[in-house]
Amino acid sequence: MTTVLKLGGSVVTRKEDPETVDADALAIAADAIAGALGDRSDGPDRLVVVHGGGSFGHHHADRHGVSATAGSHDAAALSEIHGAMGELNDAVLDAFHERGVNALPVRPLSVAYRADGTGDSGTDGATDGDDHSGTDSETARLHLPTASVEAMLAEGFVPVLHGDVVTHRGRGGTILSGDEIVVSLARSLDADRLGVCSTVPGVLDANGDVIERIDSLSSVAETLGASDATDVTGGMAGKVRALLAVPTPAHVFGLSDLEAFLAGRAPGTVVGGPE
Amino acid sequence: MTTVLKLGGSVVTRKEDPETVDADALAIAADAIAGALGDRSDGPDRLVVVHGGGSFGHHHADRHGVSATAGSHDAAALSEIHGAMGELNDAVLDAFHERGVNALPVRPLSVAYRADGTGDSGTDGATDGDDHSGTDSETARLHLPTASVEAMLAEGFVPVLHGDVVTHRGRGGTILSGDEIVVSLARSLDADRLGVCSTVPGVLDANGDVIERIDSLSSVAETLGASDATDVTGGMAGKVRALLAVPTPAHVFGLSDLEAFLAGRAPGTVVGGPE
Repeated sequence: MTTVLKLGGSVVTRKEDPETVDADALAIAADAIAGALGDRSDGPDRLVVVHGGGSFGHHHADRHGVSATAGSHDAAALSEIHGAMGELNDAVLDAFHERGVNALPVRPLSVAYRADGTGDSGTDGATDGDDHSGTDSETARLHLPTASVEAMLAEGFVPVLHGDVVTHRGRGGTILSGDEIVVSLARSLDADRLGVCSTVPGVLDANGDVIERIDSLSSVAETLGASDATDVTGGMAGKVRALLAVPTPAHVFGLSDLEAFLAGRAPGTVVGGPE
Repeated sequence: MTTVLKLGGSVVTRKEDPETVDADALAIAADAIAGALGDRSDGPDRLVVVHGGGSFGHHHADRHGVSATAGSHDAAALSEIHGAMGELNDAVLDAFHERGVNALPVRPLSVAYRADGTGDSGTDGATDGDDHSGTDSETARLHLPTASVEAMLAEGFVPVLHGDVVTHRGRGGTILSGDEIVVSLARSLDADRLGVCSTVPGVLDANGDVIERIDSLSSVAETLGASDATDVTGGMAGKVRALLAVPTPAHVFGLSDLEAFLAGRAPGTVVGGPE
């Protein structure tokens, strides 16, 4: 069974403090993962972890004016953002290694790129891991080949990817979010389960209660403000839309439910999946 | 025109001192590259740089018993070797950025893997950048997809790869040398020129003189001791054999000739290329 797990950037870092790991939260996450892999009877046998950038990289990206759509051709600036993301990745890997989780880094800048959705360059080269998410013409086609990730999984490693900068055809380099990565991986790895570990216990309704199941965006449009079709900013409506587009059932839950998710249970909100 | 340039690990690091950059040598190399890219009338318009590990990573690899053929499934050990190689990569990138070279890192562990040559897994997935170098049955097939490298080149960036650890099907992780990377890249990028910047001014004959041109291994077999068919250790005979197997003409030269090579001249020894 293949599981793709997103650890929210705001879960494992302190959003208020630039480039500061939330060591307590990371320890809880790493403990849950080590526990699940140690007891494979009900845990995942193939696990890919993706973490967001959180307070790492964020202010570098802001300072250089780089976003998911606004690119830069300044390699020093892009390397600075990439380097900050790498520091968080190192911290996550260290926490995993301390607990015997056989984790290896996969840096998206090294392997992925975007071809502009408005251009004609989307048809070249990449043969796997392609993902044309979203409906906005501004959305670019992400190419994230997974041969190296598959090789790691076959050897029993846990690949750990992260929000990063990536080359963006026609724009230099732009920001690639952890959310985009998990959606692409879930599809290209034909994942059985997709977990999104967040700072909230699930997708919340207007009363702040966890919605148990979401099968269509229209059913929750009012609650999430999803009627705004231009929402590509990574808000909850955008996340839900992206998760609904993937055949893999997705689970959105809080850190305290990570252990339950990895044990095969369905905490928080289930989004989409087979009819 | 596409140029692949190898900067020898022993050129840019002090082999005697663990994890010490040879700052003077690196500055000379970075100056030459910045100069060549600044004057594109005769310089390369698409440049990929690959550096060896030199004194970085080497003792970590030795300590953990990891080589090109001896693998490890200990992700913490592999990450330690990878991290040391990454520190050298950061130093090279810094030197490039200081001189306005728009360089971005490509970490081989993130993108490449080996399938054992003796297994049947060499036929899966990867569609480009495949390289089955060498004749020894112990030699594994290297998969180094270049879609991300091509995307960087198209945006005017200079991808910088390095000797690294890579996932090796059936063996965990093994060492991937800079020499293997340049041979793979020259082929998959259909490079026009391949430069190997070394600590010697070329391939030397028995008298220590630079051999001007090598078209076959047999012509220099006695001089290089190449009759020993089991040489897969990266000695000069092994390097020449690998370079002869690539359609791209290869130039082996010393650091003082890097500027001349990048200006389109042919210093040192020319190995192979079109008849």
